[in-house]
Amino acid sequence: MSVIEQRLMEAGVVLPKAAKPVAAYVPSVVFCDRLVYVSGQDCRKDGELLHQGKLGESVSLEEGKACARQSIINCLAALKYSIHDLDRVKRIVKVLGFVASAPGFGEQPYVINGASELLIQVFGENGKHARAALGTNELPFGTPVEIEMIVELKKEL
Amino acid sequence: MSVIEQRLMEAGVVLPKAAKPVAAYVPSVVFCDRLVYVSGQDCRKDGELLHQGKLGESVSLEEGKACARQSIINCLAALKYSIHDLDRVKRIVKVLGFVASAPGFGEQPYVINGASELLIQVFGENGKHARAALGTNELPFGTPVEIEMIVELKKEL
Amino acid sequence: MSVIEQRLMEAGVVLPKAAKPVAAYVPSVVFCDRLVYVSGQDCRKDGELLHQGKLGESVSLEEGKACARQSIINCLAALKYSIHDLDRVKRIVKVLGFVASAPGFGEQPYVINGASELLIQVFGENGKHARAALGTNELPFGTPVEIEMIVELKKEL
Repeated sequence: MSVIEQRLMEAGVVLPKAAKPVAAYVPSVVFCDRLVYVSGQDCRKDGELLHQGKLGESVSLEEGKACARQSIINCLAALKYSIHDLDRVKRIVKVLGFVASAPGFGEQPYVINGASELLIQVFGENGKHARAALGTNELPFGTPVEIEMIVELKKEL
Repeated sequence: MSVIEQRLMEAGVVLPKAAKPVAAYVPSVVFCDRLVYVSGQDCRKDGELLHQGKLGESVSLEEGKACARQSIINCLAALKYSIHDLDRVKRIVKVLGFVASAPGFGEQPYVINGASELLIQVFGENGKHARAALGTNELPFGTPVEIEMIVELKKEL
Repeated sequence: MSVIEQRLMEAGVVLPKAAKPVAAYVPSVVFCDRLVYVSGQDCRKDGELLHQGKLGESVSLEEGKACARQSIINCLAALKYSIHDLDRVKRIVKVLGFVASAPGFGEQPYVINGASELLIQVFGENGKHARAALGTNELPFGTPVEIEMIVELKKEL
């Protein structure tokens, strides 16, 4: 088992299979053998959204953070689907997170921390990433959070 | 005529001229001779938006898909403006699509399929891309869809 | 003093210190010694948002442009924090700008011009970037504008 998956296990995470994209696209694409673009992931777990609705309305901050954590777990699953071995990751480059927000909700960064904190717990220094956290009014199928990620791979030997 | 433009023609698409950016930016930028960032494009055709308004309100799913198709056509026009020959494309790397959404509309992925399906029809295997489809409340000038794209070029000889 | 900071000074800009990220991430990440991903920045100046609220409601177009200008100044501050010397910039590759928008507001591109125009004023030809300008209903802590940026660095000697 890879070092990274061991650390995921210690964080209580078992990677799911990558979700089959709903549509005409793929879980992730590798540019130039080095930069991986991971498709946007929602907070699905075992086929169902962890929560549904908006922050500042029916979804609490703690629930939102759990959704962000699940979304980044799904990003890691999509990443593994493409590169097979998570120990090939050199560093997490960029996270872009969207939070379904009721009028007046402005704590999107705290929600997306649910994703960022797991990345740092698992990848350590290499998990520190650039990030933007945005709000929006509606996300696919009512997911409270959607996250996409860019990752750098180690140079091939 | 390039192979890709032939396939576009077979799909009923004649590339328009790249839209003059409304503002202080350019249609696309090439990084390191290999990675092209295409600016966000709306669903303008012959100078007018194909539709105007939001999904889940005045714009139907079918109309939204047509808007996504037109937006990606405009992305390809912007791409051609920068690289001149679409046969230089190695693969479509990433699509980021935004759908203007009335409250309760959550089918953004089906809308953005209008773009993804054209890419795969034209570029085949190389058209399969990473993707995120998001909702939002308002887009520029009332376009129902805005899409940006990242493309990898073949290595220069 | 670097050429770029001189031009910033001529544009009336003194770069602030990079804002300490609210959360578990870093101001920017450099990929492969060449491509810098700068984290999303709001319109904070001296610790306070320049304006608060939405375009098309409590924030005017001129105020929104000033927010976009301040957000890109904060992006440049975050960039400098990572690469130390802004003269290392080869070109500005990509700007992604979000505008908090009241229902019916569709002039996001004019708002984000506040950022694009400063980039071109300071970096000249090399400041011309690919861009997407989007609307959204809510942004972190009520900022009217949030912007992230991708930059290419010159090759190391």
